[in-house]
Amino acid sequence: MAELGEHIVKRYEHELGELHSRLIQMGGMVETQLATAVRAVLERDGEAANAAIGRDQAVDALERDLEQLVVRLFALRQPVAVDLRSIVAGLKISSALERIGDYAANIAKRSPLLVLRRPPSSLAGLASMARLVQENLRLVVDALDLYDSERAMRVWYADEAVDDLFTMIFRELMTYMMEEPRNITPCTHLLFVAKNLERIGDHTTNIAEMVHYAATGEVLLDARPKGTTSVYGNPSAG
Amino acid sequence: MAELGEHIVKRYEHELGELHSRLIQMGGMVETQLATAVRAVLERDGEAANAAIGRDQAVDALERDLEQLVVRLFALRQPVAVDLRSIVAGLKISSALERIGDYAANIAKRSPLLVLRRPPSSLAGLASMARLVQENLRLVVDALDLYDSERAMRVWYADEAVDDLFTMIFRELMTYMMEEPRNITPCTHLLFVAKNLERIGDHTTNIAEMVHYAATGEVLLDARPKGTTSVYGNPSAG
Repeated sequence: MAELGEHIVKRYEHELGELHSRLIQMGGMVETQLATAVRAVLERDGEAANAAIGRDQAVDALERDLEQLVVRLFALRQPVAVDLRSIVAGLKISSALERIGDYAANIAKRSPLLVLRRPPSSLAGLASMARLVQENLRLVVDALDLYDSERAMRVWYADEAVDDLFTMIFRELMTYMMEEPRNITPCTHLLFVAKNLERIGDHTTNIAEMVHYAATGEVLLDARPKGTTSVYGNPSAG
Repeated sequence: MAELGEHIVKRYEHELGELHSRLIQMGGMVETQLATAVRAVLERDGEAANAAIGRDQAVDALERDLEQLVVRLFALRQPVAVDLRSIVAGLKISSALERIGDYAANIAKRSPLLVLRRPPSSLAGLASMARLVQENLRLVVDALDLYDSERAMRVWYADEAVDDLFTMIFRELMTYMMEEPRNITPCTHLLFVAKNLERIGDHTTNIAEMVHYAATGEVLLDARPKGTTSVYGNPSAG
């Protein structure tokens, strides 16, 4: 009887470990997808674009697997306390990662539209923004791996700089468009690329909140600091 | 003993009912928020804008309440089968509704930026798009209320028209910008408003998928039909 109990506990721990390792796998997959999408845009690399777009289905499939695993864990294991928190957090994190993958694919889809009449210098700001967003994504996947609430909070605060960069790029692109009407279409697509990066940053902070919740049980209620400068009145409007 | 069992079953049913009615309440709240945000933009109504923005906190609070309720249901009631499905679906639907509320607030935030130098006619397309998105949101909340999978599927298919309208508005706004550089800034904000409406449409179809899942147990794997015309190569890129 004791052996049977031990067996059940082991299976449960195995499934929890499985959930965790799938989440980390999904995080790594989305990191690669984003890096590839950014390369597609910055280096006008059509193969990279196709690779980033193609990756989306695998990410979606992984999210569905994770969801089924979570449903099974709930149904069979009746998790409580810290396990319950990390399972609920896991479900929301997999959703956020799926969204990030979706935005990465969308960035890649725009890359062919930027090849012609590309404005000369605005890609520098975009490259900085992409670097920062990728760095935060990497950090939050590490934080998730270790359930490291402190590291998660660092990501949460770092997103402010992403918002500031978006505002800078927005202004720069507006100027390009006004100077030269032929720039309007490619600049609009670049603007959407920047907006997608900003949204990825938002989802990254959502993951940071979930890691904090799983690790500590606390829900972050305060509004996150936003960028200080803005063309909108509110820098992340939109 | 039988009475105690009955009591527990009743409490459980009460909590499930509570989850359902809170979701419907949240749906109604987000519908109102979106209607107010659309009015802010189309009628340059500053009070409506503030009301739509202010509503966001109540929506967020409701999402957190729902999450806590779900965690309690999982921990204490060990739901299975159809109950488990509707609880998991409920968690994801509340996330989607929160995102829709967020997009509605973002639409409202842009409305002051559209007052000056507003392009003359492009608001007609935007008004049609807003009407369709609101109609679909209303339908999906009804479908959720009745767990009506057929109604949910209707919403799922109706989003194609939203994508087509977005493409039309995108082209129209590009033309305005090229004709008149002073239109560039307000048109860019209108473009983001249209994009936000398109994203609300996407989240509405996600809710439709969840209603279908809760009602039937089936996960929709096929890609949803997208708009047929596009300036992107892919109409919903971005």
